[in-house]
Amino acid sequence: MAGNKTNVAVLGTGGLGKVAARIIGMKSSMKLAAVCDSKGYAYAENGLDAETVAKLVGTEAVCNIPQYGHTSKDSLGEIIKLADKIDAIFVALPNLPNDFIPNVVKRFVEGGYRGVWSDALKRTPAMEMMFGLDDLLKQAQGVYITGAGATPGLLTAAAVIAAQSFTKVEHVNIWWGVGIPNWEDYKATIREDIAHLPGYNVEKAKAMSDAEIEQLLNSRSGRLELHQMEHADDLLLTRVGVVERRDQVEVGGIIDTRSSKKPVSTTMTLTGYTFEGKKSSHRFILGDETSMGANVVGPALGYLARAVWLKEHKIYGVFGSTEFMPMVVV
Amino acid sequence: MAGNKTNVAVLGTGGLGKVAARIIGMKSSMKLAAVCDSKGYAYAENGLDAETVAKLVGTEAVCNIPQYGHTSKDSLGEIIKLADKIDAIFVALPNLPNDFIPNVVKRFVEGGYRGVWSDALKRTPAMEMMFGLDDLLKQAQGVYITGAGATPGLLTAAAVIAAQSFTKVEHVNIWWGVGIPNWEDYKATIREDIAHLPGYNVEKAKAMSDAEIEQLLNSRSGRLELHQMEHADDLLLTRVGVVERRDQVEVGGIIDTRSSKKPVSTTMTLTGYTFEGKKSSHRFILGDETSMGANVVGPALGYLARAVWLKEHKIYGVFGSTEFMPMVVV
Repeated sequence: MAGNKTNVAVLGTGGLGKVAARIIGMKSSMKLAAVCDSKGYAYAENGLDAETVAKLVGTEAVCNIPQYGHTSKDSLGEIIKLADKIDAIFVALPNLPNDFIPNVVKRFVEGGYRGVWSDALKRTPAMEMMFGLDDLLKQAQGVYITGAGATPGLLTAAAVIAAQSFTKVEHVNIWWGVGIPNWEDYKATIREDIAHLPGYNVEKAKAMSDAEIEQLLNSRSGRLELHQMEHADDLLLTRVGVVERRDQVEVGGIIDTRSSKKPVSTTMTLTGYTFEGKKSSHRFILGDETSMGANVVGPALGYLARAVWLKEHKIYGVFGSTEFMPMVVV
Repeated sequence: MAGNKTNVAVLGTGGLGKVAARIIGMKSSMKLAAVCDSKGYAYAENGLDAETVAKLVGTEAVCNIPQYGHTSKDSLGEIIKLADKIDAIFVALPNLPNDFIPNVVKRFVEGGYRGVWSDALKRTPAMEMMFGLDDLLKQAQGVYITGAGATPGLLTAAAVIAAQSFTKVEHVNIWWGVGIPNWEDYKATIREDIAHLPGYNVEKAKAMSDAEIEQLLNSRSGRLELHQMEHADDLLLTRVGVVERRDQVEVGGIIDTRSSKKPVSTTMTLTGYTFEGKKSSHRFILGDETSMGANVVGPALGYLARAVWLKEHKIYGVFGSTEFMPMVVV
């Protein structure tokens, strides 16, 4: 680390990557050391200007950043070369295909990166692959916290807290509302959501052109309503024993791509039985004014700080966001 | 530990102590090894029957437990003699006076106890004394998690999770409702609550006879409404940086001593500003059917399991419930 600051690299500069750059720029304990996208990367030993990154729009890529930007056909490989300059990585890459992020992590660790990680991984099969890298991370004395966004992440961690009042948990229901005024800022996220619709899957969603996505959204007045999504909240909650079976966790929600107003309030409801045998539900409700960016990236950076703490305490491996309290990043 | 079970001692057998005994009896990973009250103690190497302890009423003391009960004028001293038979202690002793629990902990550690602890400590000055024992616990390779009940505890931890969405937290408000059909099961708790009323303090509340308490409750139809309580949520949340100042945390509530129905839903509301400058509030709302016992003792045992984990990882000292995720106890 440079002084007391954690040198952070953000992989990917879609909607979440840009928000991450902006928030890191507001923190006195973190420095934005490097960013990359499909066209190149940018690195500055003393830290990139977060606003410059956050304000990149449309076809502007990080390689266009004056002085620090470079084009590259293998921008991830360029970041790996900087491994010893980076303490912490937030993975804001597309979640699809499922093995994409796990393979990137494998490549970084095999390439010599020894720092810590957090991600906002969503799908269960992808997270299973991440946990499969536990031995690799332990050998490299690295720490990886997965599912550290909003759901899984913020809401899943709240479920662990809520579970404490009950001796048996029956059901965890996560019902989210997301409002984004312009879906093009969240292309990868929207494709992932479409993959959950009946008749669609990961491959089909990934293969869709932007025009096809636009057409699909138009046919639904810009709204997607999703039920029983394959979300890794189920894996994370069984892992820590909140529920016994994955089908006790249900994730769904409504995304409105034509308004920043949320169509419903995002709510985690945990229902269980107390020691007296009484059935009840605790709820965790997010304020409607909080954006997806705030609710995903805030926790991801809080978990990144926790990952630094774990490494300092020589606790290595791949962990879920349900295993540790995120820290408050100043 | 005996096999894979954590040998737990419960200090105090008031309302919370009895609930703790009952819940420990439902767990396969914990064993109720010892309990004590002002008249004596009970210990069984293979574990006490939790229901026998939980069903003690009125003047029945733990010394009356067949085969395992013993009278003693220094029951805490008797438990200290069993130090090497006990892995974990839940402190369910009266919170008053403020130095009572810290002094008990000091005596145990100086007497050779090397295990872990959790408590449901409420008042800020008492918790400050607990954190003052950090060096002592570190030297003894012990782990103590304080403020591990409902508030502070469950709701305070939820505030740490909620804070993740915001770059600046303005205010944390905890407003609780408690309904108990018979105040005599929670004599110490009610005295503590009375100490928060205008015109009362800790000494005055402690000096009140049961008849005087009864009279006070009668004059208020059995209800106490408390505002700006001196609750250690403020200390715990400043400690981890959720807020900068203690006065940004406010705790109050209504206790009804004549009904098990809660007069209001217990709610933690955290209000802050997102990175975009938007003001919003996340809320964590407890189900009305959950009792004080369930919401205090469940988390306290979850934190006790986390304390065991911390000791296994050689992380020692006094910590707050806002620093670690409670674990799910099977």
